[in-house]
Amino acid sequence: MKNIANDIIAVLEKVAGSTQNGSILLHEPLFRNNEWNYVKECIDSGWVSSVGSYVTKFEQMIAEYTGVSHAIAVVNGTAALHASLEVLGVERGDEVLLPTLTFIATANAVSYCGAVPHFVDSEISTLGMDPHKLKDYLLNHTYMSNGFCYNKKTDRRIKAVVPMHTFGHSVDIEPLLEIADTFNIVLVEDAAESLGSYYKGTHTGSFGKVSILSFNGNKIVTTGGGGAILTNDDGLAKKLKHITTTAKVPHKWEYYHDQLGYNYRLPNINAALGCAQLEVLDEYLDKKRVLAKKYEYEFKAFNGVNFVTEPANSKSNYWLNAIILDENYIEQRNDVLELTNQSGYMTRPCWNLLHTLPMYSECPKMNLDTAEAISRRLINIPSSVILGEDRS
Amino acid sequence: MKNIANDIIAVLEKVAGSTQNGSILLHEPLFRNNEWNYVKECIDSGWVSSVGSYVTKFEQMIAEYTGVSHAIAVVNGTAALHASLEVLGVERGDEVLLPTLTFIATANAVSYCGAVPHFVDSEISTLGMDPHKLKDYLLNHTYMSNGFCYNKKTDRRIKAVVPMHTFGHSVDIEPLLEIADTFNIVLVEDAAESLGSYYKGTHTGSFGKVSILSFNGNKIVTTGGGGAILTNDDGLAKKLKHITTTAKVPHKWEYYHDQLGYNYRLPNINAALGCAQLEVLDEYLDKKRVLAKKYEYEFKAFNGVNFVTEPANSKSNYWLNAIILDENYIEQRNDVLELTNQSGYMTRPCWNLLHTLPMYSECPKMNLDTAEAISRRLINIPSSVILGEDRS
Ligand SMILES: Cc1ncc(COP(=O)(O)O)c(C=O)c1O
Ligand SMILES: Cc1ncc(COP(=O)(O)O)c(C=O)c1O
Repeated sequence: MKNIANDIIAVLEKVAGSTQNGSILLHEPLFRNNEWNYVKECIDSGWVSSVGSYVTKFEQMIAEYTGVSHAIAVVNGTAALHASLEVLGVERGDEVLLPTLTFIATANAVSYCGAVPHFVDSEISTLGMDPHKLKDYLLNHTYMSNGFCYNKKTDRRIKAVVPMHTFGHSVDIEPLLEIADTFNIVLVEDAAESLGSYYKGTHTGSFGKVSILSFNGNKIVTTGGGGAILTNDDGLAKKLKHITTTAKVPHKWEYYHDQLGYNYRLPNINAALGCAQLEVLDEYLDKKRVLAKKYEYEFKAFNGVNFVTEPANSKSNYWLNAIILDENYIEQRNDVLELTNQSGYMTRPCWNLLHTLPMYSECPKMNLDTAEAISRRLINIPSSVILGEDRS
Repeated sequence: MKNIANDIIAVLEKVAGSTQNGSILLHEPLFRNNEWNYVKECIDSGWVSSVGSYVTKFEQMIAEYTGVSHAIAVVNGTAALHASLEVLGVERGDEVLLPTLTFIATANAVSYCGAVPHFVDSEISTLGMDPHKLKDYLLNHTYMSNGFCYNKKTDRRIKAVVPMHTFGHSVDIEPLLEIADTFNIVLVEDAAESLGSYYKGTHTGSFGKVSILSFNGNKIVTTGGGGAILTNDDGLAKKLKHITTTAKVPHKWEYYHDQLGYNYRLPNINAALGCAQLEVLDEYLDKKRVLAKKYEYEFKAFNGVNFVTEPANSKSNYWLNAIILDENYIEQRNDVLELTNQSGYMTRPCWNLLHTLPMYSECPKMNLDTAEAISRRLINIPSSVILGEDRS
C-alpha cells in the first residue's frame, strides 16, 4: 500500500501554498475592512461595554443576512445554545437528541440545563444527523404519552433535538423537521459553523424554532468571542433578550430582576468587530468557495482520499475543509496528522465523539457506526479565507 | 421639613460640574492610554480571540496588582463567580450565604450550581456582611455534623459564604474569615467592585479561598465585558483555568475534554483593553479619591444627608459614591432620584434587595433590618474617574 502522507502534503502545498514563511493554520481570521474604524469609534466614545449602538446594528445585520426576524447577540455560541434550550423549557430530567459528532458545546449546553444528551448517528453525505436512522430509532425506542415523546428505557421526556451543520455543510434538515413535528420534539439548529450556508436556498439557522451562530475566532467571521440566537418567534425573541441580559426589568433607575437570568451580553466593542466582518462576509464566502474548488479538483484523482463537498441541494460556506480517508488507509491517519503538522500544515482529526468522553459515556445513544467511521477517517485541512485569494 | 433635592443638586453641580454640555453619568469608562495601540495590535495580528498574548499578560498584571498568586481571566464577573463556586464543590442541595444587599449576579451564580442562596444582613459601617450578626445567627440556626455546617430548618449543608465589598468599600473580612473557619464554610470573596481597595493594607480579593473581579463597562477599569478569578491555591487555579476553557486536555490536535466545562474565556481583544486600563489604575484611583474627598467635604455640613466614606482600617477605591439620607428624609428619596436625574445628574438607588425578588423570595434568610434600612436610604451619585480631574 502506498504511503499517502507525502502526497497529501504535496496537494496542500499546491492549493494552500508554501510554508516557507511560517505555518499554514487551520483557520485564521482576516481583518482588512472597517474593523479598526468601528472599534476605534467604540474606544473614542467610551462605549465598549453593554451600552452602545453596535450591538443593535450587529443584531440587525445578522437578522437581515440570515432572513430570520430576530437575532440576539450574545457572548458566545455556547451561551447561545444554553439560553435557547432554557427558554424552550429544557430542564432537569429531560433528554435532548444531538449528534455524537459535534463540538463539545452542543452537549454541554444540555448539561447546563440539568438535562441529559441522547446521541444520534450521522450520515456520510452531510456529516450531520441521519434522519432515516433517527426516525427508525424513535419509532422503536420511544413512546408517546399525553402528546409528548418519552425514552422507553429511561422514561425521560425527549424535549428537544439539536442537529448541527458540520463544518458548514447543511444537515438534511427537512426530514428532521418532519420527525420533530411527528414526535412533538422542538428543533434547535446549531448553526455555529454555517453562517453563509444554505439548504435548498434558505439560510441555515432559519429552520429551527431557535437557532444559534458562533463568532469565535476560528469561525468564518469573528467578534473575538461571540454568538447569536436566531428566531422568528417574537415572544421567544423577547424572552431570550431578557434572560441573556440578567432578566432586568427596564426602569429609570431601579434594579429589579424578575427571574433567573444570565450575563450573556456581547460587549459593544466585540459587536463593532462583528459589524465590520459581516460587511465582507460575501467576499469571504467567495474566497472559501475558490479554495474548496481547488482542493476538490486536486483530490479528485487522489486514490484513497475523498474531499468532502457540499451535500446535494445545499450551498456550503466551506468553513472547514475536510478529507476522508478510505477504510484501507485508516492506519495511516496518525501519520498524515503527524507529517502534515510537522511540515507546517495545520490539520486535525474530527472531535472525539461525545459519547466516548468520560462525562457523557453513560448517556443514552443509538448505534453510532457511521459517526464512528467518520471520526476514524476524517481530517480537517487548512481553510482560511486568505488561502482562497489569488497568490499569482 | 426642608426639601433636600435641590440642595443635593447644588452639591452635585459644585463637585461633579455643570450639566450644560450633557448629562453626568453614574460611571463612564475612560480610555486615554494604550487602549488603541494594544487593540490595534490584536486586529493587525489577527489574534482577537482565545489565542493571543494579551490574556496571559492581563492575568499576570492582575496577579501582580492584587498580590494573589494566580489570576484567571474570564468573560465576566458572573462567570467568575459561577466557576469559583463550582470548583469549590457547591452543588445541588447546598446553601450559600451571601448578602441580600448585592448585585443579582452573586445570587444567580449560586443558582447556576443548583444551590440555594441564604441571605445575610449588612452593617451600616461597611455596607457589607455583618460578621457579628452572622456569627450569632449561625450559632443559633445551624448545627455541625461530621465537621460540616447544616441549616437547622432545611437540613441543607451550608457550603460557602460570599461576602461582597460594596461600592468598593471593604467588608470587615477578618471576623468573617474566622467564622468561615469555625463553621467549616469556604469563603469566596466577591471583589467585583473593589479592584484597588485594601483591608488593613492587603488588597481585597486576596482573602478568600477564591475571589472574583469584574471588568464590566461600569467598573473602575474595563475590558468591555470581563472578569477574573483570583486564588493562591495552585491546584484550584489549574482546575479553574481548565473548566473555564471547556475542560479541553492539551494535545497537538485531539479534541478531548475530560469533564463538564464552560466557554468562559476572555477574548484577547478584551484582554488588550484590560492591559492598557490596568496601566493607569493607580492614576484613576487617585482621581476617584479626589472626587470622593470633595463630596465628603461638601456633604459634611449637609443636614439630613451622610456621604459614605471608607470604613476604618480600609482604603476604598471609591468606585461608586453614595449618600445615605437620614430616616426622616426617606419620603424624599424618590424626589431626589427624580429631580437629580431630571437635572442631568444620573443617580440611582441601591439594588432591590435580593430576598425581595420573585425567584429568591422563598430562600432562607436571617433578619435583614439593616440592609432594608440601607436600601431605603441610599443613593448612588456620579462617580466617573474624569470627575476627579482638575477642571479649573
Ligand atoms: C458545532 C458548534 N457548536 C457550538 C459552538 C460553540 O460556540 P462558541 O465557541 O462561540 O462558544 C461551536 C464553536 O466553537 C461549534 O462548532
Ligand atoms: C457585586 C457584583 N458581583 C458580581 C458582578 C458581576 O460582574 P459582571 O457584570 O462582570 O458579570 C458585579 C458587577 O456587575 C457586581 O457588582
